[in-house]
Amino acid sequence: MKSYRNPIAGPTRMNARLLAALKAGAGQWIMARDLGRGAGLAGLRLRRDVQRLRDLGFVIDEEPARFRLAHAPDVLLAEEIRGGLDTRVIGREVIVCERVESTNDAAWELARWGAAEGTAVLAEEQTRGRGRMGRAWHSPRGGLWMSIILNPATAADRATVLTMAASVAVAKAIRELAGCHATIRWPNDILVGGLKVAGLMVETHTINSPRETSVLGIGVDVNCTQFPEEIRTVATSLALQTGRDVRRADLARLVFRLLDERYLQLCRGEIAPVGEEWMAMSSTLGQRITILQNGRTYTGEVVDIDPEAGLMVRLDRGFVRAFKNEHVTVVK
Amino acid sequence: MKSYRNPIAGPTRMNARLLAALKAGAGQWIMARDLGRGAGLAGLRLRRDVQRLRDLGFVIDEEPARFRLAHAPDVLLAEEIRGGLDTRVIGREVIVCERVESTNDAAWELARWGAAEGTAVLAEEQTRGRGRMGRAWHSPRGGLWMSIILNPATAADRATVLTMAASVAVAKAIRELAGCHATIRWPNDILVGGLKVAGLMVETHTINSPRETSVLGIGVDVNCTQFPEEIRTVATSLALQTGRDVRRADLARLVFRLLDERYLQLCRGEIAPVGEEWMAMSSTLGQRITILQNGRTYTGEVVDIDPEAGLMVRLDRGFVRAFKNEHVTVVK
Repeated sequence: MKSYRNPIAGPTRMNARLLAALKAGAGQWIMARDLGRGAGLAGLRLRRDVQRLRDLGFVIDEEPARFRLAHAPDVLLAEEIRGGLDTRVIGREVIVCERVESTNDAAWELARWGAAEGTAVLAEEQTRGRGRMGRAWHSPRGGLWMSIILNPATAADRATVLTMAASVAVAKAIRELAGCHATIRWPNDILVGGLKVAGLMVETHTINSPRETSVLGIGVDVNCTQFPEEIRTVATSLALQTGRDVRRADLARLVFRLLDERYLQLCRGEIAPVGEEWMAMSSTLGQRITILQNGRTYTGEVVDIDPEAGLMVRLDRGFVRAFKNEHVTVVK
Repeated sequence: MKSYRNPIAGPTRMNARLLAALKAGAGQWIMARDLGRGAGLAGLRLRRDVQRLRDLGFVIDEEPARFRLAHAPDVLLAEEIRGGLDTRVIGREVIVCERVESTNDAAWELARWGAAEGTAVLAEEQTRGRGRMGRAWHSPRGGLWMSIILNPATAADRATVLTMAASVAVAKAIRELAGCHATIRWPNDILVGGLKVAGLMVETHTINSPRETSVLGIGVDVNCTQFPEEIRTVATSLALQTGRDVRRADLARLVFRLLDERYLQLCRGEIAPVGEEWMAMSSTLGQRITILQNGRTYTGEVVDIDPEAGLMVRLDRGFVRAFKNEHVTVVK
């Protein structure tokens, strides 16, 4: 398996500042002088780094003394994702892998080693991607598969509030970047056009720390176009919904930024704002729902979603029951 | 085991630019206005981030409208190490771990996942640190234990040239930061005052790439003061040699920078300059030496060290023989 990240002989570190400066130009011509100043490069070094970006698949137009970014390929580059990211926790370290069994497992391995909170592991491909409750998660190339080590100081139920914060971040990022009307389906799916486009998962364990550690897994079907038979009628991708490719690096950065703001809120004990955003984007509130829990089914109307208590359902049998998102399956 | 990297509740991401600005002040007072501009912070955010650094053990003096960095503790923080590092390959990603069996094994795990060339893994502590030829490497807290994923395009013997480049980088960094006269003992030790203060190791395997991957392991006894009985007469640390602590984060950054320059030379096919630097710092050249290889001993005088052929020894039996650094033990 050849990694496209090292397509030419010798070191290929790209210049993250150069790329940021080109991207800031938003398709407009930028004078080489200004570009060089922004990137801390000049003359031959600027020219060499432009070539390096081209080697990675970036299309950079050129006229005497000026450059223009015409196309940014859908490559995941840790330096681009992290470069200039002003988040405080999420994405403080970014590891891009070619192929892992599961980004969650990779993140757990790093967490056991003592890697810092906020460390994110991304992979081009997962060979044994997992979803919630041990379900398999189809993770071919073209998707955004990532896991983040978290260690929040929050009194509320962690899985619930982290899933809420991440759901809001992913749904907002999809709306902003892909222009799709993404909604949140309790407990952990993101839908576009009624089909599942992303899923979230929180795993929590105690490793060598007095505080529990969580790993948040995020999977977004970004540019995937083929789905296995068994999920073809329920799954979709941003590319299928919009008719164009969405850059995964840009989506990852935006998710990091949006999640970071909400994560800091949670750590300050401010849970209500995230809960309100979640409800505003929910496709579940007010819907009739059937839930499978411990082998029993419950049917009713969703009347409220509480960040701490969980989903409040007015059952057909008359009373309101709360469901937390663990060990629960939404049947319909 | 408590990690000091998260001593307070909630996220503790330090502001790498703030710390860089404080360090650039070199113990002088810096106006809050200038500090804030350098760090992209103002007012309460500046004050909050100063507090975060203090929580990590940094001593920051304060007078109305100005600050001064009085003491930087010996903590390994990925953001500080990586922040503003202008290397092209080495340290492009930095993972700081609390405790691993071996940083080399951790780097191999990351390499198998497809992590990028230049990724560095550092650990506060190794529980099963390895040296060359499978020997145990004592790796308590206070040392700089790190491994770097490399994938050099070089026609020369990889283990030899990488060990040479890394030896020069480590010895130069020690001379510059600790002010000790570090020398290189073939094949892979760094000495101060005739005692071993650092060791290097290169492992090479083919994983999922057409080109072989190498992991360079570097261990420096920086602030360790206690050694096990069996190495007490041959090992030392920078703290023991200088009578003061050396900051491992600063040493790591300097090693990355010095190694990066030499690594790029090797990848351009320029091996001779590294070989010359290596020889100028060698404590082996011109010495009488006894080498154990395949159960036989060879005694003679070291007459040359060639980056490709290895150590050239004029044996007492009269002729000159070349020794590569693999599978060789220096007896005396």
